[in-house]
Amino acid sequence: MISVLSGGVGAARLLRALRGTLEAKELTAVVNVGDDLVLHGLSICPDLDTISYTLSGLNNEELGWGLKGETWRVMKELGDLGGESWFGLGDRDLATHLYRTQRFSEGATKTQVAQELCAKFGVDIRLLPVTNDVVSTIFSTEIGTLSFQEYFVRHHHGVAVNSISFSGAAAATPTPETIAALTASSRIVIAPSNPLISIEPILQVPGIREILRERHSDVVAVSPIINGAALKGPADRLLNELGHDVSCVGVAKYYQGLVGTFIIDEQDAKHENEIKALGMNVIVTTTIMANPDHAKQLAAAVLS
Amino acid sequence: MISVLSGGVGAARLLRALRGTLEAKELTAVVNVGDDLVLHGLSICPDLDTISYTLSGLNNEELGWGLKGETWRVMKELGDLGGESWFGLGDRDLATHLYRTQRFSEGATKTQVAQELCAKFGVDIRLLPVTNDVVSTIFSTEIGTLSFQEYFVRHHHGVAVNSISFSGAAAATPTPETIAALTASSRIVIAPSNPLISIEPILQVPGIREILRERHSDVVAVSPIINGAALKGPADRLLNELGHDVSCVGVAKYYQGLVGTFIIDEQDAKHENEIKALGMNVIVTTTIMANPDHAKQLAAAVLS
Repeated sequence: MISVLSGGVGAARLLRALRGTLEAKELTAVVNVGDDLVLHGLSICPDLDTISYTLSGLNNEELGWGLKGETWRVMKELGDLGGESWFGLGDRDLATHLYRTQRFSEGATKTQVAQELCAKFGVDIRLLPVTNDVVSTIFSTEIGTLSFQEYFVRHHHGVAVNSISFSGAAAATPTPETIAALTASSRIVIAPSNPLISIEPILQVPGIREILRERHSDVVAVSPIINGAALKGPADRLLNELGHDVSCVGVAKYYQGLVGTFIIDEQDAKHENEIKALGMNVIVTTTIMANPDHAKQLAAAVLS
Repeated sequence: MISVLSGGVGAARLLRALRGTLEAKELTAVVNVGDDLVLHGLSICPDLDTISYTLSGLNNEELGWGLKGETWRVMKELGDLGGESWFGLGDRDLATHLYRTQRFSEGATKTQVAQELCAKFGVDIRLLPVTNDVVSTIFSTEIGTLSFQEYFVRHHHGVAVNSISFSGAAAATPTPETIAALTASSRIVIAPSNPLISIEPILQVPGIREILRERHSDVVAVSPIINGAALKGPADRLLNELGHDVSCVGVAKYYQGLVGTFIIDEQDAKHENEIKALGMNVIVTTTIMANPDHAKQLAAAVLS
């Protein structure tokens, strides 16, 4: 069994690639909940939903987020009412959030609802939120304190960040399912998600970092930084603002002590020895899942 | 100034008729909140919304509730997910509830949000929820305890009711705006709404019944029962189940001591003396607002 520490889009693509090689029962995603929010009273779990939508084939390829065949009536009307409409919730997507919020009000956990939604969407791997507790990624920025989605969506991750914190993490409990999966897995994979804001909130949940440290020789990470840049999102900018090297080496250093094998892109082959010097094995391959063949190559490297 | 104790559809029509005669600033609706609910995490105020939608001309005439030009994408998707979709929330209607819920989360009161939504919808009279506190109409029925909307919508008001209670009412505080309006009005009107489940929850808020009792000679009620039947909804059935006469006389008795003038339909002219014997003036007119002329006649009677 393989467990994959997962953020949103990058993780979803890696999971899809791994699912091409592994049986469903062999694959578990341990998913970040630091982006989760309550907006308009609705409980929204962006990373869980991105993975569900991608693995079910219902993801919107043009937008890069949300569901295909989406419509926008509710948001349009909400905008007309003068409501907050900066966080785009499609009509189809809203149904997911209404479902989840209703189930929460009935006492269901995030883990239970993730499982129910997977069943509805036909996702056959296990998606496990790392915790059922509330963990919120918070940005201290040049314009003040921002929630994850305020930073990411409202301000298009375009403001300078001074520091990042994880409200609720210290008091959070990892789910028993997560602990069992990480303990039973022959390999733990860190997806090519943003280390600072997608993977770190998972590691901040007490117990998770310790498992990785103990099992580091079984931990494989895929660099989300290729040739000094992120494929998507603000990982490069944030690494720089928070004093890390903006390179696969910077990410490897960030994961030092937690990771036994680090996978970098062919474009970064020149950094192989620097990373080996950190005490990691290095695999050089294509890490840009631009087409099914490349995704398959990356999956093979992860499982090698 | 005139204040109208208001439920949903019947009150909305009377208010529309009165607005045809009065200036906007002369007309205030004091609105029932006992039907309000939280569903899927969204705060829904059916009577306030029915009145806003009707007075703005945005109401859906075919359905008899909700907004015109409505679409149903979210509910359709929610149904596909296996979510609870018995309470029909149109895409356009949902925007209202998202707006309200967001504003509540920011600390706005029900009164403030009602005012904001009126401004957005172009409703120029004042809509005042009787209280900003939670009051919930609860039905004890043959199949167990039901919330208002479970009784009304989910079970199509088709189960036998043993008793009705108003959770939260005793501890609720009427809004200062409501008290000021009822005190300053030259006339207080009780709309032809269901006495047991639309008007009673207003009267249950401490202080309201006392104002009506004190000012009963200035209080005018319109019978919602015509020729022994309700135009709409379960008023007739509930009057019977709870031991009242199913007639305008039964309603007049229900309001005895609170009402100085009772307006009954021409079809009920034969009951005039029975109601006078209760110590009320009686006006006999057309009370079915089937067309603008009839609505105008009723408005004239209310204001006479």
